[in-house]
Amino acid sequence: MSKPTPLSGFPELLPAARTVEREVVAALSRTFELHGYANIETRAVEPLDRMAKGGEIDKELYVLRRLQADDSADDTGLGLHFDLTVPFARYVLENAGQLEFPFRRYQIQPAWRGERPQEGRYRQFTQADIDVVGKDELPFHHDVEVMRVMVQALGGLPLPRLSFQVNNRKLIQGFYQGLGIPDVTAAIRQIDKLDKLAPEAVAELLVENAGATREQAERCLELATIRVSDHTLVQRVQALGVDDELLSRGLVELSAVLEGCADAVRASGGRVSVEANLRIARGLDYYTGTVVEIFMVGYERLKAVGGGGRYDALASDGRTTYPGVGISFGLSRTLVPLISEGVLAGSRAVPSAVLVALADDESRPVSERVADRLRSRGISCEVAPTPQKYGRQIRYAERRGIPFVWFPATETGASDQVKDIRSGDQVDADTATWTPPEGDLRPTIVTSTDDPEENTQ
Amino acid sequence: MSKPTPLSGFPELLPAARTVEREVVAALSRTFELHGYANIETRAVEPLDRMAKGGEIDKELYVLRRLQADDSADDTGLGLHFDLTVPFARYVLENAGQLEFPFRRYQIQPAWRGERPQEGRYRQFTQADIDVVGKDELPFHHDVEVMRVMVQALGGLPLPRLSFQVNNRKLIQGFYQGLGIPDVTAAIRQIDKLDKLAPEAVAELLVENAGATREQAERCLELATIRVSDHTLVQRVQALGVDDELLSRGLVELSAVLEGCADAVRASGGRVSVEANLRIARGLDYYTGTVVEIFMVGYERLKAVGGGGRYDALASDGRTTYPGVGISFGLSRTLVPLISEGVLAGSRAVPSAVLVALADDESRPVSERVADRLRSRGISCEVAPTPQKYGRQIRYAERRGIPFVWFPATETGASDQVKDIRSGDQVDADTATWTPPEGDLRPTIVTSTDDPEENTQ
Repeated sequence: MSKPTPLSGFPELLPAARTVEREVVAALSRTFELHGYANIETRAVEPLDRMAKGGEIDKELYVLRRLQADDSADDTGLGLHFDLTVPFARYVLENAGQLEFPFRRYQIQPAWRGERPQEGRYRQFTQADIDVVGKDELPFHHDVEVMRVMVQALGGLPLPRLSFQVNNRKLIQGFYQGLGIPDVTAAIRQIDKLDKLAPEAVAELLVENAGATREQAERCLELATIRVSDHTLVQRVQALGVDDELLSRGLVELSAVLEGCADAVRASGGRVSVEANLRIARGLDYYTGTVVEIFMVGYERLKAVGGGGRYDALASDGRTTYPGVGISFGLSRTLVPLISEGVLAGSRAVPSAVLVALADDESRPVSERVADRLRSRGISCEVAPTPQKYGRQIRYAERRGIPFVWFPATETGASDQVKDIRSGDQVDADTATWTPPEGDLRPTIVTSTDDPEENTQ
Repeated sequence: MSKPTPLSGFPELLPAARTVEREVVAALSRTFELHGYANIETRAVEPLDRMAKGGEIDKELYVLRRLQADDSADDTGLGLHFDLTVPFARYVLENAGQLEFPFRRYQIQPAWRGERPQEGRYRQFTQADIDVVGKDELPFHHDVEVMRVMVQALGGLPLPRLSFQVNNRKLIQGFYQGLGIPDVTAAIRQIDKLDKLAPEAVAELLVENAGATREQAERCLELATIRVSDHTLVQRVQALGVDDELLSRGLVELSAVLEGCADAVRASGGRVSVEANLRIARGLDYYTGTVVEIFMVGYERLKAVGGGGRYDALASDGRTTYPGVGISFGLSRTLVPLISEGVLAGSRAVPSAVLVALADDESRPVSERVADRLRSRGISCEVAPTPQKYGRQIRYAERRGIPFVWFPATETGASDQVKDIRSGDQVDADTATWTPPEGDLRPTIVTSTDDPEENTQ
């Protein structure tokens, strides 16, 4: 067969780069589990009607069909899921009787969208989602919890600085109500366009589509310009002079989220910031309280790399409603560009910390025994495939990034030796006691600079 | 939306059962990496022509199309991969310039086949594959290596007994050649039917389709009945009186595989056996040396739960050929039936080892601080969602399988306490020093009996 070419929109990683993704997944999973989030994995497909939005099936969906014996095709009524929320909502409904609520879960899986590929937007992409779901009710403190967990999880990764921009739907809705805007939902949709349109154009739309007066539209824009990360939030909003009960509740919730994340933000050592940004609305209609979007500083061109919020009806089977709060983080969206720019790399292409050299074909069992003894102590290693000159075996290790080469003793009474091929140091060593430095044991993530601040400039 | 029903052939696991799968994946990955196998992940889709076998596209393939604006559909020319070998071969060709050979990789991912679902056969199923691939050549010792690694990996799992049944294509082919059978390839295909047809029927087919005489057909069947796991293999085959150079090479290779696995078989403590079974042929034409099929004792109705072998041309771009040897293990095929029978279960549905009790809503920050201190020491925990009576909080933990409930001190000078809810023991405890027993730290796999022998009866 001819040499294949990469498929646009379906990024794949070389082994060293894959190390980066694996370490990130492991670190996120660790944090999620420390907070009691259980991992689940849902199937790749959902019935098309479950994925319809407002009765319409997205044109970007991949639909599955089966080939028939007569070469015609048979539609299965199934499509590949485009996010992890739809499958999760379905999983909750399907298994509600066997789940305990509040149910905390995380899911790290691919999703598919047939959209035009561009940087940070792929046709297959991996996301990491956490959600807490309640049965009939879900106390507000879970909003704070989910945000804290995600701040802590992402704050532990060697990524450029991340900015969590938080808002609250009750706050916006209450403000618009208090102002007397006729169509509050339409107003939220217009404000959501502020990242694409100029403020004047959005003001125009507020008048046209939400029935706002010029004056009301101005006040909406004033609210939308507020960005603060401290306790001045309440004063800033109250200074706009709108009084509404829902607004007050939203303000209390948003303040609690900022305050609740303060510890985790501090612990991230500057890697993560959390601020109220009152123009964040998130278009999707199902958000009802907290909303958040995550941006990567210096990579604003990727748009939001994560987002989520509170929805009072994640799922409902007609009798029972399941409210939830969750955040989704785009692993492919962040990692693929960072890896291709060389900001992140894997320290080596193989798990092996040691290459066991091979004196000649007859001594393969000797070298294998050395390797097995090291493995029994948790040290990954491989035996040289052919008994080339030692210089060539060392170059074999070098090309793979394997830091150590082990030379089994070839004479009785002599000791085995191990060489650090970076320094050239070679010392006597015993398989029962020798251990590589902790940092060499497994492949690690190498950042283009040790200063995370600099990564983002 | 209405309550969804499960999709036939797309098994999904509840959180506790998912623990089983995750622990198995982690254990396999650990062993593979100790032996220098790098993890890769390939995209879910392949061009249809890459998945064609002998020019024909399998009818069980799921083909992807995109919905168009006018509701007609647009074929993408892509399908979901039905195994991990086709994507791996393509990945090797596509990235050959950036890979180092021999290239060891493992891959644990889902694959899809639109076949009729039945026990052990699903439309979406996860496989764990290891392969070693060379450029132009790949020494035979990698056959032994791959088998040993898989024996070691599977021997470490709490599964019913696994039987590796090994053969060698050179041995069979050489034997048939030496016998003087006209169409050796056709003969191999007929012998492969021995698991479905009676020996007499297969003898008939050998005469009809491979041009064998009655006498030759009898000898083929005699070879196919040989099953040994020790050094008597060579004598048993030689006793059939066929002399052929390829046969001899095949015998040497097969003996080396048995011998090379002996250590790993012993170390598995009876969980894994490896034997030569000279009727194993594996239908696929691309195998050229070692072939293996894995069966789970007591679960023969599932057919082979794994298999693989040596192929001299895993991939080729016309100029360079990449020989390989690999084994695939069916994770879904084994785990889903074992879980649904209750042979394997997860010890709990949540990662949390500790539930931190909540005295009242005002003391949530106190309970949160306790939880954070435990987490900083690697102990997963969650805080009770509501300040119910302590008895109800304990039942909350019980329902989730959380073994410990932590009671923060409610008076100054008093000590925190922790209760093992299984024994009822409650003791003073300090977040800086208290540690749960190792076995309670993470959810674990619980087998229906502690004796792996009994699982298989």
